[in-house]
Amino acid sequence: MSSACAALIDDLVSANHILFVEGVVDGFGHVSVRHDRRDDHFLLACGVAPATVTAEDIVEVDYDGVVHDDAGRRSYLERYIHSEIYKARPDVMAVVHSHSPAIIPFGVTRATLRPVCHMSGFLGLSTPVFEIRDTAGEDNDMLVKNAALGKALAASLGPHQFALMRGHGSVTVAHSLKLAVARAIWAEMNARLQSEAMRVAALAGHAGDADGGVRYLTAGEAKGSMAINETVVDRPWDFWKSRAKAALAGMTRI
Amino acid sequence: MSSACAALIDDLVSANHILFVEGVVDGFGHVSVRHDRRDDHFLLACGVAPATVTAEDIVEVDYDGVVHDDAGRRSYLERYIHSEIYKARPDVMAVVHSHSPAIIPFGVTRATLRPVCHMSGFLGLSTPVFEIRDTAGEDNDMLVKNAALGKALAASLGPHQFALMRGHGSVTVAHSLKLAVARAIWAEMNARLQSEAMRVAALAGHAGDADGGVRYLTAGEAKGSMAINETVVDRPWDFWKSRAKAALAGMTRI
Amino acid sequence: MSSACAALIDDLVSANHILFVEGVVDGFGHVSVRHDRRDDHFLLACGVAPATVTAEDIVEVDYDGVVHDDAGRRSYLERYIHSEIYKARPDVMAVVHSHSPAIIPFGVTRATLRPVCHMSGFLGLSTPVFEIRDTAGEDNDMLVKNAALGKALAASLGPHQFALMRGHGSVTVAHSLKLAVARAIWAEMNARLQSEAMRVAALAGHAGDADGGVRYLTAGEAKGSMAINETVVDRPWDFWKSRAKAALAGMTRI
Amino acid sequence: MSSACAALIDDLVSANHILFVEGVVDGFGHVSVRHDRRDDHFLLACGVAPATVTAEDIVEVDYDGVVHDDAGRRSYLERYIHSEIYKARPDVMAVVHSHSPAIIPFGVTRATLRPVCHMSGFLGLSTPVFEIRDTAGEDNDMLVKNAALGKALAASLGPHQFALMRGHGSVTVAHSLKLAVARAIWAEMNARLQSEAMRVAALAGHAGDADGGVRYLTAGEAKGSMAINETVVDRPWDFWKSRAKAALAGMTRI
Repeated sequence: MSSACAALIDDLVSANHILFVEGVVDGFGHVSVRHDRRDDHFLLACGVAPATVTAEDIVEVDYDGVVHDDAGRRSYLERYIHSEIYKARPDVMAVVHSHSPAIIPFGVTRATLRPVCHMSGFLGLSTPVFEIRDTAGEDNDMLVKNAALGKALAASLGPHQFALMRGHGSVTVAHSLKLAVARAIWAEMNARLQSEAMRVAALAGHAGDADGGVRYLTAGEAKGSMAINETVVDRPWDFWKSRAKAALAGMTRI
Repeated sequence: MSSACAALIDDLVSANHILFVEGVVDGFGHVSVRHDRRDDHFLLACGVAPATVTAEDIVEVDYDGVVHDDAGRRSYLERYIHSEIYKARPDVMAVVHSHSPAIIPFGVTRATLRPVCHMSGFLGLSTPVFEIRDTAGEDNDMLVKNAALGKALAASLGPHQFALMRGHGSVTVAHSLKLAVARAIWAEMNARLQSEAMRVAALAGHAGDADGGVRYLTAGEAKGSMAINETVVDRPWDFWKSRAKAALAGMTRI
Repeated sequence: MSSACAALIDDLVSANHILFVEGVVDGFGHVSVRHDRRDDHFLLACGVAPATVTAEDIVEVDYDGVVHDDAGRRSYLERYIHSEIYKARPDVMAVVHSHSPAIIPFGVTRATLRPVCHMSGFLGLSTPVFEIRDTAGEDNDMLVKNAALGKALAASLGPHQFALMRGHGSVTVAHSLKLAVARAIWAEMNARLQSEAMRVAALAGHAGDADGGVRYLTAGEAKGSMAINETVVDRPWDFWKSRAKAALAGMTRI
Repeated sequence: MSSACAALIDDLVSANHILFVEGVVDGFGHVSVRHDRRDDHFLLACGVAPATVTAEDIVEVDYDGVVHDDAGRRSYLERYIHSEIYKARPDVMAVVHSHSPAIIPFGVTRATLRPVCHMSGFLGLSTPVFEIRDTAGEDNDMLVKNAALGKALAASLGPHQFALMRGHGSVTVAHSLKLAVARAIWAEMNARLQSEAMRVAALAGHAGDADGGVRYLTAGEAKGSMAINETVVDRPWDFWKSRAKAALAGMTRI
């Protein structure tokens, strides 16, 4: 059990459940938050599926990716995604890694994921793509399983709030846990909406227009809506938490 | 607690639940109805997610957007959507604002949302699009958060029953609460069906035909089906209410 | 309450529930079966949503569309769909009318709905489309609300097992109730699969090939698979019934 | 009841439930595993829907497709899919046959199903397609209902882990039951993701690029990710089992 504040651990458990119920993670995927009482650790679940995470499953990991757990439990192979982003980005307090379905197609094409609605302004004017082959070569197993790959991913992310991972998924970051969860949900939603908007525009005969006939948020709209959404994140968080509790009521780890 | 008739408040609570369960609203979105006992107020939930609205959450708002609540609770930032439409449209008794997923792509393209089936005749021969940039400029946060923006939205709506909001969602209106709810559901359904019809027509090689190869309702069919559907709205309403009750049985606000 | 055999009424109630849970009907849509003890009546629910139909809701209708019910209850406006098909088709024992979502796009385009897999051989080599304008003119309310329109629909159906209704939905028929339900489910499934197959073929660059690059069932395969599926319909029926019972356990009519 | 180890039977029951809850099988489809105590039999459910399979439903089948059951129960018409693959492939310990929806479109077109993400490396660089007409001719009922057709299917499968069946579905194999189940789920997931990736690439104007603008796994990535996923299959298996248990709690065979 972590030495972090119980309320923070409780939020991290909720974050795991919410991300599952909202369709962002399934058997795989993970979410972390910086420790609130020591600056050399962050919190992550041991290697269990997000839907079944409990407070007892939360372990502490340091920024070299070493798991610190009295019971000797391990965590996810890809915990370096988290450790290296935290090292590179002092502003980031929480990280989500997921394989959500609408995101993956954007990562394997040269289409640019861009905000089509007011919830996804945090995507800015474009989103970076992490190509693992650039670091690991053509013969790799696709996993960010060591510090070098984590560092390369953090470099791809740069100052952004979101990065695609080619053939794999994405990472979402924020200066709070609730906001990281919300953004991971909104990124998946935006990918669905953008793909459909591109289709509708093409079917209506406007694929040849600027931006393929889709009216994306302007830079000002992206910035403005990102700011206002940070102030209202409690409403969807509370709702998602209610829904997750109801949805997972009958589910216990086998 | 509002001074309105308990049955009306109960219907407004049901409307919130139905719109969530039928996929029209999620953590955001709202529905209002005019007060039945005073002509200067309408009813709206305080700022909670629709799925978790109870009778105690209903507050009164006046047509300047001022919330009147003994407990001092606030309501949604975008309550001006409702107040300004009610001012501009004496025939409208209820308003739904939502971000339903099939609708947004139509709002960000120049495709015209049109009725492809007998439930969506109320869309008429075309649907207006509200462009917030025309009023708020390129640097805005996308929200209809004051009376001026609400007035501009009401002007875009004009005499229609439905308007798209670019990069945001839509508003649906009707002369009864049940009908506004039904139309919001049917508009989302029509958007899904129309997009798919456009695709099937294009794949079958008919994109070059009139209307992109899709046979939409005629003006007469739109009018005729809109009229008949007003007479049968109780059947789906009762069904949606039953389904919402079952679906939300395990859900309580956190 | 009908004078028909209790087991038949029970099956008709199950048919209503199954069609709802499998996504073929929602608040609207209906299914009928011929009376087993008199040859001048068929059985249909009174005007309630399929998901909430109980044995007490089953009424008898004659082949002129007149409802015979001691309690004076009415049934669906479109009961003439059933009465006229039964008159025209002595081989038909059950009829499903629905607005299932993947079907509607095929009805409003000139794409041909055809079997792409072994469950949908009953569709044959093509499916007829009922165009209500041909009988009712351009100013109509889209509903098959009298005998003349029912007769025209039956004429469109001809000897087929399935007909599209433009801008509305479809009718499915069979020589048994279980088979009519199964076919309505399989028709919807085929429409989804066919649309996606057309898309995948086009994206792979084969839209210019014969049949748009899609390999449909041959005439022999359609006939062969239709025959074998009639012999195994009990397995999916029992499964659908189990699933419907579980899905509707918490749902009661309001 | 089979003479196999109770734990293996329990896993086979779970496999049935998981495949249903994860959307791979519905009323039809089946999964088998080799007997652990005798080398001439494999285990399969008698002819019931996967969602309702219990330990009592498991029967033994030999490699000629003969069912051995004291109670004289029968099994699926298509058990030859399993028997002939086991004969041809000593490395295969478990077989899944399904009609999952995203797979069928790839089988009826000349598009190649290929891995677009790290879970589906087992698909390799291409997937074979079984064309039943090549063995059964144009007049067939689409079912693999005898040993000759099963043998032809096994020949199509060759050394692969997965084969499409034109107009029907697919088979998935593995050296363990858990892995066969996981791969069947991941194959369906890959088909959805690949179709969407092809669409996004085309909409972004890259359909004319190599591989239609989609960056698939390299041979090395396919091999590497296939290997690593074999080591982590317990996590999704445990999660799927938990989810299946919760999802099927209210469902009993009628």
